[in-house]
Amino acid sequence: MKMMNLFRNWTFSPPQFLAIGFGLAIIFGTLILMLPWSTTGTITWMNALFTATSATTVTGLVVVDTGSDFTVFGQVVIMILIKIGGLGLMTFAIMTVLVLGKRIGLKERVLLQEALNQHSIGGVVRLIKILFIFSMVMELIAAVLLSFRWVPEYGWGFGIYTSIFHSISAFNNAGFSLWSDSLSGYVGDPVINLLITFLFITGGIGFTVLYDVMTTKKFRFLALHTKIMLVGTLIVNLVAVIIIFLLEFTNPLTLGGLSLGDQIWASYFQAVTPRTAGFNTIEIGDMNPGSIVFTLLLMFIGAGSASTGSGVKLTTFLVIILAVMTYLQGKQEPVIFSRRIGNEIVNRAMAIVVISVTVVFISILALSISEPAAPFMLIVFEAFSAFGTVGLSMGLTGDLSELGKQIIIVLMFIGRIGPLTLAFALAKSSKPLVSYPKGDVFTG
Amino acid sequence: MKMMNLFRNWTFSPPQFLAIGFGLAIIFGTLILMLPWSTTGTITWMNALFTATSATTVTGLVVVDTGSDFTVFGQVVIMILIKIGGLGLMTFAIMTVLVLGKRIGLKERVLLQEALNQHSIGGVVRLIKILFIFSMVMELIAAVLLSFRWVPEYGWGFGIYTSIFHSISAFNNAGFSLWSDSLSGYVGDPVINLLITFLFITGGIGFTVLYDVMTTKKFRFLALHTKIMLVGTLIVNLVAVIIIFLLEFTNPLTLGGLSLGDQIWASYFQAVTPRTAGFNTIEIGDMNPGSIVFTLLLMFIGAGSASTGSGVKLTTFLVIILAVMTYLQGKQEPVIFSRRIGNEIVNRAMAIVVISVTVVFISILALSISEPAAPFMLIVFEAFSAFGTVGLSMGLTGDLSELGKQIIIVLMFIGRIGPLTLAFALAKSSKPLVSYPKGDVFTG
Ligand SMILES: [K+]
Ligand SMILES: [K+]
Repeated sequence: MKMMNLFRNWTFSPPQFLAIGFGLAIIFGTLILMLPWSTTGTITWMNALFTATSATTVTGLVVVDTGSDFTVFGQVVIMILIKIGGLGLMTFAIMTVLVLGKRIGLKERVLLQEALNQHSIGGVVRLIKILFIFSMVMELIAAVLLSFRWVPEYGWGFGIYTSIFHSISAFNNAGFSLWSDSLSGYVGDPVINLLITFLFITGGIGFTVLYDVMTTKKFRFLALHTKIMLVGTLIVNLVAVIIIFLLEFTNPLTLGGLSLGDQIWASYFQAVTPRTAGFNTIEIGDMNPGSIVFTLLLMFIGAGSASTGSGVKLTTFLVIILAVMTYLQGKQEPVIFSRRIGNEIVNRAMAIVVISVTVVFISILALSISEPAAPFMLIVFEAFSAFGTVGLSMGLTGDLSELGKQIIIVLMFIGRIGPLTLAFALAKSSKPLVSYPKGDVFTG
Repeated sequence: MKMMNLFRNWTFSPPQFLAIGFGLAIIFGTLILMLPWSTTGTITWMNALFTATSATTVTGLVVVDTGSDFTVFGQVVIMILIKIGGLGLMTFAIMTVLVLGKRIGLKERVLLQEALNQHSIGGVVRLIKILFIFSMVMELIAAVLLSFRWVPEYGWGFGIYTSIFHSISAFNNAGFSLWSDSLSGYVGDPVINLLITFLFITGGIGFTVLYDVMTTKKFRFLALHTKIMLVGTLIVNLVAVIIIFLLEFTNPLTLGGLSLGDQIWASYFQAVTPRTAGFNTIEIGDMNPGSIVFTLLLMFIGAGSASTGSGVKLTTFLVIILAVMTYLQGKQEPVIFSRRIGNEIVNRAMAIVVISVTVVFISILALSISEPAAPFMLIVFEAFSAFGTVGLSMGLTGDLSELGKQIIIVLMFIGRIGPLTLAFALAKSSKPLVSYPKGDVFTG
């Protein structure tokens, strides 16, 4: 009876509920991965927890080899965790409720609204239904297309299986691969390049954007958010392709030895994967320091809101740039596509970026202490990759100390939950009791 | 006649004038340092430009050894450039006008107001007079006190000379030393530790703070800015001492071999020097990776407004933290010491931090390309040090390529002028012609 009351009057806020949900999925995943039929050999608790976290947060950083150290059963568990993490635990929970035929209460709707960044509560349930079906259809079609490439190469069994695995991993921006060198074997393969990037760009642009594009006929009738995401993604990806190409085409370890066609495919792939897919077709650790630093920025920016990707989000990044430019020009509010961006959106974006920078900075500091022998660039790269749930690595993941693994686990979790969500979950809301006079401070 | 009109109707904004002034001082300094009697051997144009920029921007990064490669004449030139840079070119220019007995026009006053961050134009001239006398008196007293320590050690000539040099270098947060290992010879010396840190903390806290403290009797009557700077400096320094001590006291290369007393002196010195003095009493390159990363943060935060230091400024840092915490708590405006911090101050702080991060990021990217063989940590440290006009180095400065030197020169210049000043100088102010409806964007 007391237990019932506890449930009825729970005081979890939506962000807290989201965090707890993800946490439970990770714990559950860890337990299953510890089962003897999950792995070909043995696995430590820490490595199982790391793998479960990496899968649920759709990161893709690995301490053990997905293809050889896990059995097919273990790999399917990883696939399910990716699906849970990609669609969002909330969506998943709601779907369960729908399947059980129960109506969704207001509390769950608010929760879902938070997860999908949807402003109106009405239609959210319908949206989730569409999202679930849409993702399944996307993954299925992509798997079929991929199997045209991989069945001839690997035969029916593994060919179809690896197509499904990589389709799910790509659409959910998980970056898990059954090959230890990710997709390096297909650096110049147009089919693999196009299909995989199409999957993770689609998954990463955000479901509300896709929904808007599918239900709106003309560009000018699209929502402001959709317009910014479409144009922003196009510009950022285009700029990234050019920069990666220019920085790498003379590097003998990466693009130097390839034909021009393969160079362009590889530049394209490495330009779009950091925001936050995590597959790679060239060895990340072989790239020039300049490309690495540029990749850090892309990993920090990340994907779109309400997507399978993380990072501070492309819109956050663009809003901040726009706000600073507006401030410098002495104007009042940022304007884009003939719409004003309100102060509350700018403040929110600022909070996200500041908290994100703080989280990444503390992680780098902690990793510097836990991995004193590791080159600094590898540490910085690993921290950005984990926070953006990207999954690219310069090779540090496997060499991490136990403390280092714990730091990355926490970082992936915060990265996927969203630093702002976490901060809200921790912060206590309060109303000011007194009104104070304005003060003056010089800044800079 | 045309020339006269050009001067009368100049269209330089104060920030542009400030940037041009600093530029002229650097060019002038470079030319003098190229004179044969400035150096004991020969010096390249690039190294002369680097030294002149480092001195004028009170940074302290050196490509040639100040003590051995420059003659006393060259060192005096560096001292004068430090004095010009430390007090600000504007202050210096105004003083010249005062000495010449001319009255100061409104245009110059506005310029000065910008340089000193003073809000009211009235009293600025008087303030400058006090500033000039105050700095001279401070440097003189400190030089006398230092000579009590250094005359017995080095005799009258070099003893007094080195006391004056280090007094001026410390008060102006320049970090230039006549010893190639900076103040490492005095790691446990209480007199040197106390005098030098007192000088650069006083110089770095901002003249308006000092003036306020000297003319106000009670703490609660102090200006808000003064209160924040005093309490903020105390807390940040205290935390920094503890963190540096904890991270380094077992490191055999730095504090490990010292007595507990010397360990505390060394922790104190290395905790307060990064915000932006630039002297050191232990080898920076020998510190643990954790201490290095923590030092990056201190270098980025920097000193106070209207001071001889740079960085984004302690108040900027605190305002941002406060604003984010306020946002998380769902309150309207940040409150500190019973005063509200207005939106325009928060926006300004945000612009400073965003532009600063952008500048540092681009520099790290550029240095990664120009110094492909250099360890990443050395590059990152050098960029933060140059931007904050700190002058600490892990040893990269002397090994920089010519392109790398150019990058650091530009970075020191931007760091001292202030990224916001520079951005304003570049940005075109404009009023919006149309009022747009509000749009909605999801961020994060
Ligand atoms: K990923
Ligand atoms: K300095």
